[in-house]
Amino acid sequence: MRGKFVTFEGCEGSGKSTQIKLLGQYLKQQDIDFVVTREPGGSRIAEEIRSIILDGRNGEMCAECEALLYAAARIQHLNEVVAPALESGKLVLCDRYVDSSLAYQGYARGLGMKFIEDINYAALYKYQPDLTIFLDIPPRLAFERKHGADKNDRMESEGIAFHERVYQGYKTLLRKYPRITEIYCCGTKFETSDIIIRVLKEKGIIRG
Amino acid sequence: MRGKFVTFEGCEGSGKSTQIKLLGQYLKQQDIDFVVTREPGGSRIAEEIRSIILDGRNGEMCAECEALLYAAARIQHLNEVVAPALESGKLVLCDRYVDSSLAYQGYARGLGMKFIEDINYAALYKYQPDLTIFLDIPPRLAFERKHGADKNDRMESEGIAFHERVYQGYKTLLRKYPRITEIYCCGTKFETSDIIIRVLKEKGIIRG
Repeated sequence: MRGKFVTFEGCEGSGKSTQIKLLGQYLKQQDIDFVVTREPGGSRIAEEIRSIILDGRNGEMCAECEALLYAAARIQHLNEVVAPALESGKLVLCDRYVDSSLAYQGYARGLGMKFIEDINYAALYKYQPDLTIFLDIPPRLAFERKHGADKNDRMESEGIAFHERVYQGYKTLLRKYPRITEIYCCGTKFETSDIIIRVLKEKGIIRG
Repeated sequence: MRGKFVTFEGCEGSGKSTQIKLLGQYLKQQDIDFVVTREPGGSRIAEEIRSIILDGRNGEMCAECEALLYAAARIQHLNEVVAPALESGKLVLCDRYVDSSLAYQGYARGLGMKFIEDINYAALYKYQPDLTIFLDIPPRLAFERKHGADKNDRMESEGIAFHERVYQGYKTLLRKYPRITEIYCCGTKFETSDIIIRVLKEKGIIRG
């Protein structure tokens, strides 16, 4: 049986990697076979593309180029890592996916949703996630929690106004794609983790 | 006045770089301001992308990833190199452009023209070449002339059947895009160069 595909979305500092780690600990206890991966990257070629995208020296990169590089890394990662894992019946947890491109490049950078949808056709329709967890925390709060951003990372060094637009982009996607579930991160990381596990059970991703 | 944009297309070994060089010598004699550039590459970021595409170790790269990387390098090169040169009134000669993606990825790799057109929207419609020179020489002949291919180059090390499909792809494009002019390379390189110069004059790219 094909495995389930769960993606995690949110602004910088929303706690995606922490939550994936906590979920992983739970799945291990439950003896559920799973794979954790991330975007952009997750395979050798995709990691090479990632390093070009995030390189702090590449400030002259145009928005279309950035969006196309994300799409290129995504499809390679899909074919090399995600698809084989799903076919072998594994649960795949992916840190960022196509919704990041829609929120960051389509919405916040103003490229428009149509172009991002066109260049990510396979990710949106052939390999649509079974569930997308959106960790909802306002960027200003997330930034404070993270105690500053990495200045050498092109995404993290963007100003707060950019991240506010990304947040609005995610809110727009929530209304369009029913596969996205919004989780308010108002409690401790353990409380948030408990909510995520409950959602996975309710949606039939793992046994309840 | 905006400069003219001329692109050169053809299979491996069709003599594009030789013809661009000969044309450049003529333009210099005529005191015509021009810029020579190439795809994939032509700017720092685009060259970084080029090195991933052509790396012989990247045999596991999927066709969609390859097509998206070409499109990413193209738009960056357009914005950084081609557009500013055209705006300053220069004649731009570009070795390969969007038709290479249509012939190689869309046709020969079987991704379909629609996907390649979608991901190269700006190159096809916003920065459409004023003239595209297709150097027509059957791949088998071109290969012999080149005395073998570079085995470390992913494109050149493809088999002859692949290059025959690319050639068919170009023939298909000729019927679709009137901007493409076919030039049969049956004479010496100097005879071919004379034909190209005549075409540039006839099409109003340079003064006749």
